[in-house]
Amino acid sequence: MKDSTSVDIPETSADARGEAPLFTGKSSSGGGIIYAHKPSSAQKKGLAIFDLILRISAIVTCLAAATAMGTAEQTLPFTTQFFKFDAGYDDMPSFLVFVICFGIASCYFLLSLPFSIVSIIRPQASGPRILLVIFDTMVLGLTMASAAAATSIVYLAHNGNSSTNWLGVCQQFTDFCQATSGAVVGSFIAVAIIALMLILSGASLRKH
Amino acid sequence: MKDSTSVDIPETSADARGEAPLFTGKSSSGGGIIYAHKPSSAQKKGLAIFDLILRISAIVTCLAAATAMGTAEQTLPFTTQFFKFDAGYDDMPSFLVFVICFGIASCYFLLSLPFSIVSIIRPQASGPRILLVIFDTMVLGLTMASAAAATSIVYLAHNGNSSTNWLGVCQQFTDFCQATSGAVVGSFIAVAIIALMLILSGASLRKH
Repeated sequence: MKDSTSVDIPETSADARGEAPLFTGKSSSGGGIIYAHKPSSAQKKGLAIFDLILRISAIVTCLAAATAMGTAEQTLPFTTQFFKFDAGYDDMPSFLVFVICFGIASCYFLLSLPFSIVSIIRPQASGPRILLVIFDTMVLGLTMASAAAATSIVYLAHNGNSSTNWLGVCQQFTDFCQATSGAVVGSFIAVAIIALMLILSGASLRKH
Repeated sequence: MKDSTSVDIPETSADARGEAPLFTGKSSSGGGIIYAHKPSSAQKKGLAIFDLILRISAIVTCLAAATAMGTAEQTLPFTTQFFKFDAGYDDMPSFLVFVICFGIASCYFLLSLPFSIVSIIRPQASGPRILLVIFDTMVLGLTMASAAAATSIVYLAHNGNSSTNWLGVCQQFTDFCQATSGAVVGSFIAVAIIALMLILSGASLRKH
């Protein structure tokens, strides 16, 4: 019991904390494959600062992807009897879902900033970190799934499909295709940033 | 150091282990929001058995989804000058990716069974459990993304899209559409099972 009393003191010096062992027993459980090296308080603070930077870049990337997709619209200056020549992101359910999901993701990362800052101030507190991991995982799933759905449509728009007689439309809708392709590329960058964030959070959550 | 020596003894009675505290310090860190209740060894064993059952149903569901998609093929008994009337899963890159990803997923869950059985025999060992969580997360991303991509194509096949002049093909390819729709529904069941598995693994990994 007495080992846990030192935790409630607000941390002022990371280095001083890093040298004070929280547990008398070093190796906590069986397995022991992964817990050979335990991150110190200073290392955790470093990870938390890097997490904050990644979180800010995730906001920017998600917002950029959502905006690029949301503003993608093109009307061609001519029309025929059978074809109407305008395309917008809201014509395609997958693109609409993409905009909504990446909008949600950027809002979430904005709201998660205070929790990340708490993790910097108190690197040993695992409560906020676990909350962040749970919601980060959800948002990763959300963004990954909507990015994949949008990718399959963008691929179709570029290449078409012969067996279903869907023709590629990127010869006509050049600007629209460029905007949506850019949004998809941005979304994969965002997914990579979120995945990296999760891996770092996992490393930071190792037993302490 | 001496706290860790008791771990290497093979477990014979889960109840006897459940009452022996591994740590002298009970509450490990700040926060303390989530660690109010710690799972006992018997609870962990129950979670591990449930995990094994979920893993077996994930194999079955992933294999069923991959097979349903992989065998989806239809050739219509007529042809015209402009349209060729056959459709297979390998005409659509998204469907091909779907089959590959769900094949990989079912192989992975088959290979993960021994690790799950080790978790049943030794509920306190967190090494195999952490390995499973890491790879489960990857497979969840893989299956979720490929399911989302296939869904967007199945939706297009059912409804078509007017602004790009892609017509729905499910009036012609009824059997093909039924098979792919079934595969997509199966894939979402598989994704739900994998997500539940991950949540249970997370619960089982709580500090002990």
